Amino acid sequence: MHSVFIDELDAQTYAEHVARTGSTIIIPAGATEQHGPHMPLGVDAMLSRSIAEAVAQLTGALVAPALCYGYKSQPRSGGGNHRVGTTSLGGTSLSLMVEDVVASFISQGFDNVVLLNGHFENYQFLYEGVDNAVAKTRTAGSTARAILLSYWDFVDENTLAKVFPDGFLGWDIEHGGILETSLMLLLHPQLVDMDRVIDHPPAKLTAYDIFPEDPARTPDSGCLSSAKGATAERGQLLFETVTDQVAQALKGELLLGDINIEVN
Amino acid sequence: MHSVFIDELDAQTYAEHVARTGSTIIIPAGATEQHGPHMPLGVDAMLSRSIAEAVAQLTGALVAPALCYGYKSQPRSGGGNHRVGTTSLGGTSLSLMVEDVVASFISQGFDNVVLLNGHFENYQFLYEGVDNAVAKTRTAGSTARAILLSYWDFVDENTLAKVFPDGFLGWDIEHGGILETSLMLLLHPQLVDMDRVIDHPPAKLTAYDIFPEDPARTPDSGCLSSAKGATAERGQLLFETVTDQVAQALKGELLLGDINIEVN
Amino acid sequence: MHSVFIDELDAQTYAEHVARTGSTIIIPAGATEQHGPHMPLGVDAMLSRSIAEAVAQLTGALVAPALCYGYKSQPRSGGGNHRVGTTSLGGTSLSLMVEDVVASFISQGFDNVVLLNGHFENYQFLYEGVDNAVAKTRTAGSTARAILLSYWDFVDENTLAKVFPDGFLGWDIEHGGILETSLMLLLHPQLVDMDRVIDHPPAKLTAYDIFPEDPARTPDSGCLSSAKGATAERGQLLFETVTDQVAQALKGELLLGDINIEVN
Amino acid sequence: MHSVFIDELDAQTYAEHVARTGSTIIIPAGATEQHGPHMPLGVDAMLSRSIAEAVAQLTGALVAPALCYGYKSQPRSGGGNHRVGTTSLGGTSLSLMVEDVVASFISQGFDNVVLLNGHFENYQFLYEGVDNAVAKTRTAGSTARAILLSYWDFVDENTLAKVFPDGFLGWDIEHGGILETSLMLLLHPQLVDMDRVIDHPPAKLTAYDIFPEDPARTPDSGCLSSAKGATAERGQLLFETVTDQVAQALKGELLLGDINIEVN
Amino acid sequence: MHSVFIDELDAQTYAEHVARTGSTIIIPAGATEQHGPHMPLGVDAMLSRSIAEAVAQLTGALVAPALCYGYKSQPRSGGGNHRVGTTSLGGTSLSLMVEDVVASFISQGFDNVVLLNGHFENYQFLYEGVDNAVAKTRTAGSTARAILLSYWDFVDENTLAKVFPDGFLGWDIEHGGILETSLMLLLHPQLVDMDRVIDHPPAKLTAYDIFPEDPARTPDSGCLSSAKGATAERGQLLFETVTDQVAQALKGELLLGDINIEVN
Amino acid sequence: MHSVFIDELDAQTYAEHVARTGSTIIIPAGATEQHGPHMPLGVDAMLSRSIAEAVAQLTGALVAPALCYGYKSQPRSGGGNHRVGTTSLGGTSLSLMVEDVVASFISQGFDNVVLLNGHFENYQFLYEGVDNAVAKTRTAGSTARAILLSYWDFVDENTLAKVFPDGFLGWDIEHGGILETSLMLLLHPQLVDMDRVIDHPPAKLTAYDIFPEDPARTPDSGCLSSAKGATAERGQLLFETVTDQVAQALKGELLLGDINIEVN
Repeated sequence: MHSVFIDELDAQTYAEHVARTGSTIIIPAGATEQHGPHMPLGVDAMLSRSIAEAVAQLTGALVAPALCYGYKSQPRSGGGNHRVGTTSLGGTSLSLMVEDVVASFISQGFDNVVLLNGHFENYQFLYEGVDNAVAKTRTAGSTARAILLSYWDFVDENTLAKVFPDGFLGWDIEHGGILETSLMLLLHPQLVDMDRVIDHPPAKLTAYDIFPEDPARTPDSGCLSSAKGATAERGQLLFETVTDQVAQALKGELLLGDINIEVN
Repeated sequence: MHSVFIDELDAQTYAEHVARTGSTIIIPAGATEQHGPHMPLGVDAMLSRSIAEAVAQLTGALVAPALCYGYKSQPRSGGGNHRVGTTSLGGTSLSLMVEDVVASFISQGFDNVVLLNGHFENYQFLYEGVDNAVAKTRTAGSTARAILLSYWDFVDENTLAKVFPDGFLGWDIEHGGILETSLMLLLHPQLVDMDRVIDHPPAKLTAYDIFPEDPARTPDSGCLSSAKGATAERGQLLFETVTDQVAQALKGELLLGDINIEVN
Repeated sequence: MHSVFIDELDAQTYAEHVARTGSTIIIPAGATEQHGPHMPLGVDAMLSRSIAEAVAQLTGALVAPALCYGYKSQPRSGGGNHRVGTTSLGGTSLSLMVEDVVASFISQGFDNVVLLNGHFENYQFLYEGVDNAVAKTRTAGSTARAILLSYWDFVDENTLAKVFPDGFLGWDIEHGGILETSLMLLLHPQLVDMDRVIDHPPAKLTAYDIFPEDPARTPDSGCLSSAKGATAERGQLLFETVTDQVAQALKGELLLGDINIEVN
Repeated sequence: MHSVFIDELDAQTYAEHVARTGSTIIIPAGATEQHGPHMPLGVDAMLSRSIAEAVAQLTGALVAPALCYGYKSQPRSGGGNHRVGTTSLGGTSLSLMVEDVVASFISQGFDNVVLLNGHFENYQFLYEGVDNAVAKTRTAGSTARAILLSYWDFVDENTLAKVFPDGFLGWDIEHGGILETSLMLLLHPQLVDMDRVIDHPPAKLTAYDIFPEDPARTPDSGCLSSAKGATAERGQLLFETVTDQVAQALKGELLLGDINIEVN
Repeated sequence: MHSVFIDELDAQTYAEHVARTGSTIIIPAGATEQHGPHMPLGVDAMLSRSIAEAVAQLTGALVAPALCYGYKSQPRSGGGNHRVGTTSLGGTSLSLMVEDVVASFISQGFDNVVLLNGHFENYQFLYEGVDNAVAKTRTAGSTARAILLSYWDFVDENTLAKVFPDGFLGWDIEHGGILETSLMLLLHPQLVDMDRVIDHPPAKLTAYDIFPEDPARTPDSGCLSSAKGATAERGQLLFETVTDQVAQALKGELLLGDINIEVN
Repeated sequence: MHSVFIDELDAQTYAEHVARTGSTIIIPAGATEQHGPHMPLGVDAMLSRSIAEAVAQLTGALVAPALCYGYKSQPRSGGGNHRVGTTSLGGTSLSLMVEDVVASFISQGFDNVVLLNGHFENYQFLYEGVDNAVAKTRTAGSTARAILLSYWDFVDENTLAKVFPDGFLGWDIEHGGILETSLMLLLHPQLVDMDRVIDHPPAKLTAYDIFPEDPARTPDSGCLSSAKGATAERGQLLFETVTDQVAQALKGELLLGDINIEVN
């Protein structure tokens, strides 16, 4: 059994995968963005990469190198693009990069391309890139399909109730909060320092955006809610739900290859 | 008292406004998109234009011609771009157009530019356009500020409870539903035909997007929830809340001009 | 009989039109531009929209929302882009927007797309957008055709002689002059204030453009010739000629649908 | 006395010119386009280059390498882009190229940049490129100015009357006609074959454009009017008028360097 | 002592680095590209990342997430873009992404940005991106500087002689050859399978490129020379030379921060 | 026998060429760039144009107008973009222009398009333009092929030994050196002034690029090595080798038309 990460695969092994009916590549999309004093800048790429890995093992897919730079962080979901540590792409460069990468995988022969997003602000620009890539390759004769998703959209009510026993307040304030911190405690515990978690009430987000950004709109911590209460166990609950649900969605929607062959 | 719509103003009157301290222009952003069998394609531009008008009267602002074409409709919020009647821009052309228009208003002398969005899928591309315009004009010496908002983000809990007495199920399924239909019944009743409203349960949206789009994912009606229950009275509640809240937000955030002068 | 404006049509009625052989959509293109002290900023979009409406009624076509922002006004035809009130797009954003809109209408099923221009400086950028849209959709299998025109190119010698009894001096100086003012007096009289018309000789245009623009090149009024002499009667002459001639050109060039069906 | 063409100048001599107050570079813009059976494809670049040379000698300016590829030929002014021999740029690539070249000359130190156009369809895209270049370099601190012109706009009534004794029918049909052929007979007689001139009536141009282009709209010859009557003498009249008038316009509008120094 | 990789640093620690005089960020640039049957697709990103890490430790710099997708592989240096496993960006998207990332680091406060390239075909597009980013941030007032390099350009004659005792044949055929394989044997031995190295003579490269690419131009192995002879010891020689020389170059050219502080 | 330069051909003669099986167009690509005190700014375009002419005569091809503006000169191969006289395009505008020109020639009916490069820094941007043009025209049904080359890559060892009897030091320092000067002495002797050649040792190039460029990195002369030793005889040797080898490569790779017919 070999790695699911294509950057660790030789071209021959990779080519055999691509040639199979139902061949599927998952592209994790993250960001380089401050996540408070207790977590590293790479959280979004790390989480989407780990979730992609697990989904790949459940579905026989491969995992492409993560997109490590994302769209400008916004105060209403990520603290804002003015914060040191947040290194961003504009919308045009992000969409063009995605269009090129997706079209390149399709032209190599993949039947399915999955964009697995881990950075809230990316979604619409990923959509634009995937949409254009599929339209272009279809004009050139391809029949490949693509799927775009953000992993947190697969957390069910049941899991939410367990992870947030005091009530879930919305995904928008989860930047640097319990969701991401719990998953990091599970997957990259050595990169989390719970002693530096700051206990502050959830950020009161405005219903609008201001240009240029007003630094006063986000807490000093850079988090939109406190990560107090994050645990690896809660991370495990989230991780299992998400990977399971995403895998099921892919199996239901796409014609996938024979998994048993893939992972041995 | 003259019109707040700049396309109806002569250049001299307009120039006097622009020259005032706190001069503000509101740009409504809509779409050309199917809204079910009971409402016209122009709903998003019509509503954002009418809300902008009321906000302008409350704040002394002017209203620019609406952006009538929006970003590709998506099945998880608007029925999907494949439906006849939905006429869309790509992300690059939408962002570039917004950048040019916002930069053009700033360079004429406006102190504040407000983008008032009425089409869900537009938001991130409007953000990119406004962000680039403000960055560019700041490099060239301007101190103007901009605000971006979607009008439904200003509906408070109280109003929601009254408009949706059976429970509010989320903005995503409100495409062609009670919110938009109630507002249209208030503002453009002659363009709504309640007899053609189809009574169907809310669409069960998937947690992901598929390319090319799968037409089976949205109800035949093109609406994501039924507009049954929409009334002009509910429209009035929504309209008052939204225009009031937006006007207050602008007054709180921006240095606005002397309103009394503006509207007489 | 329903409206010819698609923003006022429901998706079902619209879809029936699109499905007919010879289905035709007319897109009016205007600008937001100063037109002197006696006329509003929206003249170009208003006139192209009204002319499109009349042509649609004569040909069974539908009318799309107008493009309300146009290319940079130039001193040799419109007073210049530096004047307050003139809010413009760059060439790239205008061409891209047109390409997206035209391609979107073609992919929905229209057999014919007509761009009806009302702002002199737009023409070449509209041409680029339409040309690229038709090329792209043809590569993807479409057989739709498109036509691009500026409405004043359809005024015949006879009408010119009547409208300009003292001699016609060229379209370039008609910005804010007798042509546009007469049409506005016919179509939107409440937005014209003939008392504010300034009587000055036609602007002496240079044979070149200067960058940055030299404000001294255009009259203070913002008009390139005086609107003195404009009347609704002359507007009626112009309107009839233009709408008639454009309708005849479309009928001669395009396979149009059955008009009787369309307008009942 | 050295060449006015910078591609024939060494960098030292060139640098001395650039360093002078009032330093001016003229960029000729042409096309690669069919001009009937009697003239070569390079007419537009050849003529604008020769006119630029003469103007440079009269004003102390230098001449840059000509832009040899132009915007898509259009049936209403040049025969159409579908004709073999016509090799064109899209609007975006033409405008971007002009923006880069103009900005590059300004950043080297020229006080004035002149775009001298010889291909009708280029104008608006040259305008966009120059406008953006001047705006960008001004933001970066430059005070350079630019001028854009098409050479035929400098032919006066008097000359027209002599060159077209039977009446002048408009610049639009002069593609491959008496104007261009006379100038070529003067400047590049060995590249003109008057025996192959076809005598046909002026093309009846439509008032609109069709996409895809309809080849039947232009005469088989590729010319929009017959070059019968073209002579080197008429070319001389045109050439003298144009170079004189352009030189005077530049002197009137720009601060030019000391001509005597330049040409010795 | 903490990691030099910013994706593993929290925002506070990162911000302290950025605030220091001489703060420097190194961005490794790689590709996703076939490297023969014995090495994985991620070689270019892995090597540039490891070299960046060592250089960072020698200079007090930090290392950004690697650019994992590169410009189209070309037969004369990398086997060609048609080979399965090679997943590429176009020139525009690569340059734009680099421009955004570099400008983003500069605006956060870095004094120096280093692009460390590990994929031959990238160089010119990286150059364009860095050049535009530095020009743009300088216009906005920054004084930051940037350096661009490909790591193999720092291998000296002495080392070459040791690594290629039979004579060095040029960098162009080193794709999948002794250089890259030796470095991988040193840095990622578990990802190299020397048993699968194919022994074939160096590829005879043509002096030109063909479009569409001709697969016959590169050896079946996908390597342009055989990796026979690659050893970890040779990798060590190369690695030491390169990291040393690059560190010295940066110290000589840039004002760097106090290293002792950085690495403790 | 007529000219091989298409700008000197009438459309009819040109069309007959294009219609032949194996029809081939060669596009010379140069630059406007300082080449030291002894040579003019246009060297790159002049040399590629002359070499294209000779190759065309040997192969029955035609020659298009040269691309006279190239990518930014870089200190490691051309002296740097900051030097007065160097007038450059950005990567995007150069690639887009090439894409448009190549696609235009292919759509007119050429079977083969050859880009013949004479400016080192151009190569990758020409590659991107040609690659995109061929991909686009193939999607639209074309079977045309393209070749891209830099002329100096065809100089063989034998010739090098004769031209550089003291040893050849690499193409990178040949900017303004013996290669280019010898060719200019052969082809455009009146534009070379050997008295102004400065005798200095070859530039010691750094292994990296700096932004903004450091003027101290290139010799004052603007040449990277001295042209002392350049002669027309050496130019003749180089010219013959290059034109011969390029012609042979084209004949070997492309299906060319019947040469005898072409040149009579």
